[in-house]
Amino acid sequence: MTDTLNANAPTSWPARLWRILQVENPDDSWTRWLNSGLTVLILVNVAAVVLETVQTLADRYAAWFGTIEVASVAIFTVEYVARLWTCTYSPLYRHPWIGRLKFTLTPMALVDLLAILPFSAGFVTYDLRFLRALRLLRLARLAKLGRYSAAMQIMARALRRCREELVLTAGLMVVLILTSASLIYLAEHESQPDKFPDILAAMWWSVITLTTVGYGDVYPVTPLGKVFAGVVSLFGVGMVALPAGVLGASLLEEIRASRQQLDKRCPHCGQPLE
Amino acid sequence: MTDTLNANAPTSWPARLWRILQVENPDDSWTRWLNSGLTVLILVNVAAVVLETVQTLADRYAAWFGTIEVASVAIFTVEYVARLWTCTYSPLYRHPWIGRLKFTLTPMALVDLLAILPFSAGFVTYDLRFLRALRLLRLARLAKLGRYSAAMQIMARALRRCREELVLTAGLMVVLILTSASLIYLAEHESQPDKFPDILAAMWWSVITLTTVGYGDVYPVTPLGKVFAGVVSLFGVGMVALPAGVLGASLLEEIRASRQQLDKRCPHCGQPLE
Amino acid sequence: MTDTLNANAPTSWPARLWRILQVENPDDSWTRWLNSGLTVLILVNVAAVVLETVQTLADRYAAWFGTIEVASVAIFTVEYVARLWTCTYSPLYRHPWIGRLKFTLTPMALVDLLAILPFSAGFVTYDLRFLRALRLLRLARLAKLGRYSAAMQIMARALRRCREELVLTAGLMVVLILTSASLIYLAEHESQPDKFPDILAAMWWSVITLTTVGYGDVYPVTPLGKVFAGVVSLFGVGMVALPAGVLGASLLEEIRASRQQLDKRCPHCGQPLE
Amino acid sequence: MTDTLNANAPTSWPARLWRILQVENPDDSWTRWLNSGLTVLILVNVAAVVLETVQTLADRYAAWFGTIEVASVAIFTVEYVARLWTCTYSPLYRHPWIGRLKFTLTPMALVDLLAILPFSAGFVTYDLRFLRALRLLRLARLAKLGRYSAAMQIMARALRRCREELVLTAGLMVVLILTSASLIYLAEHESQPDKFPDILAAMWWSVITLTTVGYGDVYPVTPLGKVFAGVVSLFGVGMVALPAGVLGASLLEEIRASRQQLDKRCPHCGQPLE
Repeated sequence: MTDTLNANAPTSWPARLWRILQVENPDDSWTRWLNSGLTVLILVNVAAVVLETVQTLADRYAAWFGTIEVASVAIFTVEYVARLWTCTYSPLYRHPWIGRLKFTLTPMALVDLLAILPFSAGFVTYDLRFLRALRLLRLARLAKLGRYSAAMQIMARALRRCREELVLTAGLMVVLILTSASLIYLAEHESQPDKFPDILAAMWWSVITLTTVGYGDVYPVTPLGKVFAGVVSLFGVGMVALPAGVLGASLLEEIRASRQQLDKRCPHCGQPLE
Repeated sequence: MTDTLNANAPTSWPARLWRILQVENPDDSWTRWLNSGLTVLILVNVAAVVLETVQTLADRYAAWFGTIEVASVAIFTVEYVARLWTCTYSPLYRHPWIGRLKFTLTPMALVDLLAILPFSAGFVTYDLRFLRALRLLRLARLAKLGRYSAAMQIMARALRRCREELVLTAGLMVVLILTSASLIYLAEHESQPDKFPDILAAMWWSVITLTTVGYGDVYPVTPLGKVFAGVVSLFGVGMVALPAGVLGASLLEEIRASRQQLDKRCPHCGQPLE
Repeated sequence: MTDTLNANAPTSWPARLWRILQVENPDDSWTRWLNSGLTVLILVNVAAVVLETVQTLADRYAAWFGTIEVASVAIFTVEYVARLWTCTYSPLYRHPWIGRLKFTLTPMALVDLLAILPFSAGFVTYDLRFLRALRLLRLARLAKLGRYSAAMQIMARALRRCREELVLTAGLMVVLILTSASLIYLAEHESQPDKFPDILAAMWWSVITLTTVGYGDVYPVTPLGKVFAGVVSLFGVGMVALPAGVLGASLLEEIRASRQQLDKRCPHCGQPLE
Repeated sequence: MTDTLNANAPTSWPARLWRILQVENPDDSWTRWLNSGLTVLILVNVAAVVLETVQTLADRYAAWFGTIEVASVAIFTVEYVARLWTCTYSPLYRHPWIGRLKFTLTPMALVDLLAILPFSAGFVTYDLRFLRALRLLRLARLAKLGRYSAAMQIMARALRRCREELVLTAGLMVVLILTSASLIYLAEHESQPDKFPDILAAMWWSVITLTTVGYGDVYPVTPLGKVFAGVVSLFGVGMVALPAGVLGASLLEEIRASRQQLDKRCPHCGQPLE
């Protein structure tokens, strides 16, 4: 409460700008407007990047896509410069040079830089494939949304919470993929040398089978290969899904924890339940 | 108990009809007969709509399908008019005009209207495709069943209960699909320009792979694309399944809760919770 | 304990036979021998039925398969007659006629009858396809194993425990399959009239997609169909898996309950935990 | 603590070597160096085996692969001999002959022997396919990693913990696969005699369908076959996944238990449980 009052109290306007950009007071109307605006801009950008890869749209609306890109980079550059300029008002980056340098190296500042870089880099290279990669890099602007939500922190906590289980189950996953790839390679290499030329190719089969995707581009045809594949499918499927399952469960727990932090109490007598 | 007695007490017959149509007393024999009859009629209708799309059946039993349709629309129209006429006996829609208007705008009344509309609309259009859509719209009659069961309410409560988890995991899902589509587009566009012409097409691949459906109409063929697809499959599969898993779990909890409603009380003060 | 003593006490030998056949005392050596023998015979039978469908094996080992069949039917017939004859020693089927009739109508007695019937029926029909079905009916002998294990009872209890959840989620499953089949039919019927000729055919697509099997024999090709299929996959996959998940979870709970029935207590102080 | 001191106290150096090889004191710097070195060597070996199956790499880097193989076998042989020589310092294998024999028969000693055997066996056979199998057997070196981690013990405990559930659900799985294979064989044998020649072939379909892999190499085409396949998919999918799910859950529990070993005590008397 006190903080909110301070935020509205007369301060130098660069400090005010810093507070707005850092979303220190989410109920402030300026903050809300700026956040909504930037969120919309990011979403428009992502949509533009995706749609620009459709050749017919890219040809017909070339001007629109160009305008969106130039305007976005302009706004994101202004935002980046504003952050860099005002960051000295934070106790963390007080020093004019060292503080600003420290600020540019924070993850979110790097993401902000990454969001404007592809545009500038476009002037110095003419390699078509690299240009396409650069253009897609603009999708990294999506990561800017992380600043405005708690989702990133929740994801990080979820990863930290299940680190040990993740390492162990991922190890088991690797062993299973390697073993099943070797077995199928042994059984099928003779009959289908083009589909199972080596164990690396067999690992592609392993991953696509054990995740139950099963495109059908490679599958065993020999009786021995089918027996191996059947046994591996029946027991391996559950094992390979463990890391993803562990991470998913951890994420859900973290989401729930962040929501229910306050109280699990009887609404009538106020006693804690469980 | 008192209510049941009242229901059997002599009242004006429009009020009686309203009570029967609203299933206010499920043990009343008239109510039971009407409900069973309408349920059977709805199921017959759904079966008819599905079977009518089979050309040979549509040709041979055209008369039957026509009769079922006309009879159903007649009965459903009578039902709709009866509800509209008697609804003023409910304290919610007492006013002859405003009350009836309010009633026509309730979700269930709209469903009832939707169930008889396709028939009438069939007279004003001759576009074949639109006609087919209209005919299928009769499947919406299935939603009329929602009136007679608690299933709809359970579904709604389940959605409300897991709203926050759903939004967060759905957001993660979108980011994952977008990211994997961009990566595969970058890796495969050169080699398979017809399968991965743009990111929208690559998103089809992402969805079909991450849900582990894996039709096999599109799959990566380059080594880089296979590595991307493998990693995305192994870790993305669990993440993309989160929203569906959250919703499913919430639904099960809600079903169980509606069954065990009785003894969920605070162990300290004995008051019912929620 | 008293029962075990009684079982070894001198009784009439038909009563003794009944007790052995009913496995009233699993530690009795005669009982154990008979059970093991019948279990092995059943497994040999199942293997024979499966292998007999392989043409080369059927030709080469025709004599063996014939011998196994005749010997098995002989033994199973003796077993059935012995049960029918001695069942009057049970307090449930005391009456010579009515008791025996009641016994023949118990589920397990019907299974026993079904296990010897296909052989006899083979004499009266010459329709090839029906004969094949009859021969496979011998696989029903597998159900005889249910007599010797508690698995069947556990399965029955698991089904009863989750009946309500099963009905509701199966209903939701049907609605989802119907809805997605109608949508895909609308979107794809024009472009692929051979793959999606009617809603029944589209339901095959729905089931194979929503269970994530995804053979790849039918899949949408129009943009609208792909959007429908994508949304249906992302959210429907979790919903359609609910009945199977509910049943599986219920089964596991039942297995655990039947194992831990005795005690969940601290091994040191004897206090119940939780 | 006392043990650590003892480990550093002056003892005969063969005893010291035994302790280092057995990782009795993980904080000892010699132990750490040896472990890290052997772990890296094993991973390099596995990578070499996998990459050697790629023809182009095998041709170009033949000398490197040969060197890695010879060096590894040399080091693993030295390791094996050192273990065999010093094992008499363990109270379990004190006797010079009987103790050493007992040691060679422990699972980990057999794995160590298996890791050096393929090389020697390569001299006595010239059968190409057998040679390839032998070469892949070198992947068993991966199992040597089990010595340095607790992962193997966790896996063993997880298997033991869910033994009963595993047996019951695996039995159910076999019954389901057999039943669905028989049904599909009956329905499809006439129409697709090449895809469903016998029940063994139909079991391949069952496994690939029930695990939801669904390659698309075999699928039903008759209406009856599609109905069978649909019902089997909808309800069988959850059942067949049970063993893998049970094992996976048990493994996760075991991982968590090994992490939280500390505070699992009876809330009444404070004694540790299990």
